[in-house]
Amino acid sequence: MSSHVYETTIRLQHVDGAGVVFFARFFELAHLAYEHMLESLGHALPADLGRAALILPIVHAESDYRASLRMGERVRVEVSVRAVKSRSFTLDYLVRKEDGAEAAQLSTVHVAVDTATGKATRLPEELAAALGQRAGM
Amino acid sequence: MSSHVYETTIRLQHVDGAGVVFFARFFELAHLAYEHMLESLGHALPADLGRAALILPIVHAESDYRASLRMGERVRVEVSVRAVKSRSFTLDYLVRKEDGAEAAQLSTVHVAVDTATGKATRLPEELAAALGQRAGM
Amino acid sequence: MSSHVYETTIRLQHVDGAGVVFFARFFELAHLAYEHMLESLGHALPADLGRAALILPIVHAESDYRASLRMGERVRVEVSVRAVKSRSFTLDYLVRKEDGAEAAQLSTVHVAVDTATGKATRLPEELAAALGQRAGM
Amino acid sequence: MSSHVYETTIRLQHVDGAGVVFFARFFELAHLAYEHMLESLGHALPADLGRAALILPIVHAESDYRASLRMGERVRVEVSVRAVKSRSFTLDYLVRKEDGAEAAQLSTVHVAVDTATGKATRLPEELAAALGQRAGM
Repeated sequence: MSSHVYETTIRLQHVDGAGVVFFARFFELAHLAYEHMLESLGHALPADLGRAALILPIVHAESDYRASLRMGERVRVEVSVRAVKSRSFTLDYLVRKEDGAEAAQLSTVHVAVDTATGKATRLPEELAAALGQRAGM
Repeated sequence: MSSHVYETTIRLQHVDGAGVVFFARFFELAHLAYEHMLESLGHALPADLGRAALILPIVHAESDYRASLRMGERVRVEVSVRAVKSRSFTLDYLVRKEDGAEAAQLSTVHVAVDTATGKATRLPEELAAALGQRAGM
Repeated sequence: MSSHVYETTIRLQHVDGAGVVFFARFFELAHLAYEHMLESLGHALPADLGRAALILPIVHAESDYRASLRMGERVRVEVSVRAVKSRSFTLDYLVRKEDGAEAAQLSTVHVAVDTATGKATRLPEELAAALGQRAGM
Repeated sequence: MSSHVYETTIRLQHVDGAGVVFFARFFELAHLAYEHMLESLGHALPADLGRAALILPIVHAESDYRASLRMGERVRVEVSVRAVKSRSFTLDYLVRKEDGAEAAQLSTVHVAVDTATGKATRLPEELAAALGQRAGM
C-alpha cells in the first residue's frame, strides 16, 4: 500500500493571526493533495463540476493536530486510500513537516451521488478500480 | 449621493502571518459590501451564477492602502457608485476603521457580458436604474 | 444548556467550483461562531495572539455533512459547549439552513497551552467558568 | 530584463460560484509568485514577520482582467521588477493560461517601513540590489 505525495510551501497568506496555519486550512491542504492524486490517476475533477451527472461530496472529515506549521515551511501531504466500497471511499492524509515530523492526520469520506436524483450511487468502475489499486486491495 | 454601508469584524482567519489583514482580502471585503448592496437594491447575485445568461465580471480592480487592520477590529465598508454607463459601471469603496480612519480605498469596474456570445452587452435596465439612482444621477 | 447563535450569508467567494460551500469552509464558519461566542462572553481572542502567554489551539476537529449550502443562503451556526475539563474544552456546532434543516454538525477540541513551555496548562479560571456556565454545568 | 516564473494549478477551492477564479484571488496568486521570487533571490519573508524590524507592506495594488481561469487549468505567473527606488519598489505580474493567453495583468507597490517608528525607511541594500539586478538596471 503506497501513498500519494503532494508537496507545497506555507506562504504569508496561509498563516493566521496566531502566526500558524489555521486549523481549517489543513483540510484545504488535504483536498489539494486529493485533487493532485486524482489527476495522477487520470481522474481529475472535471472543470464543469457544477453540472456533472455524478459528484463525490465529502460526508465526513476529521483532523488531529500534532504540531503547528509556520510561514516558509515546506510541507508534505501523504494521501492513502483506506477503504473503497461500492458507493464510497475513505482517504487518510498525513501532513509532515520538512524534518518528517507529523503536523496533522486527517481523513475524508466521499460518497458518489447521482446529481439527477440526489441519491447515493455506485462509484464509477474505473475510479473504484484506480483507488482500489492504490489501496493495495 | 449616498453610500451603502457594510460592517463586519476582522477575525483570526482574516489575518495573515504579519498580524494584519492581507492586501488581497481587502478586495474580498469590498466584494462582500458590493453583494450586500446588490441585495439591498433587490438585485442579489443569482445562486446559479455559473449558468446565468448575463454576468457582471470585474475587468479592473485597484486599492490604495492607508492603515492596517488587526484581529478583533470592527470595520465599515462604504460603497458608492462612481459611474454607470450603458455596458459597465464603476464602484468605489472606502474601508474605515472603527474610529473612522481610512484603512483603504478601492474601486472595481464591472462589465455586463452575454455568456452566450462572451461579448459585452447592455446592463439590465432595472439594475442600471437602481445603480444610477444610488449614484445620484 | 443553551447554544450561542451566529448568523451569516453565503456569498460568491464562499462557494467553490461545484457551486456549493467547500467542506473546509464549514470549519471557518464554525470558528467565526466560536470567536463570536468568546466575544459575547467577554473573552475575545486578543489581537496580539501571536505573542500571547496562553493559547487555545484546536487539537481535533470533525464534521459530518448533511446538505450543501449555496450562494445567497442565510445560515445559522449554533455553538454549544459539550465539555469543559481542567486543560481543555469541546464545542459542538450545528449549521442550519434558513428553513432550519441541518447542513452540518461539527466539533472542535481546544487545549490550553503555555506558549513559554509549549505544554498543556490549566484553562484560565474565568474562561473555564464562563464556558462551564454556558454548558449548563 | 527577465521575469521570474511561478506556476500552479487551479483547484476546486480556488474557483467561486461563477465557476471561475474570483478576482481577489488573482492578487493571492501574484503574491505567491512574489514570495517565490523573493525566496529564489535569497530574501524569503521571515517566519516571524509579525515581529520584524522592517516590513514591506503593499500600498497600492491593481489588476486588469482579460480572461477567466477555470478549475484544472495550469497557470503561469511572470513577475517582473518595474522600478526600485530608495524606499519602495513596484512589481508587475502577468498571469497566463496554459496556451500563453493573458488572463490578467497586475501590479503591486511595496514600501519599506520601520516597524518601530511606523515610517517609510530605506530598502535593505541587498534586497534593493537583488531587485535592481532583476530589473536590469
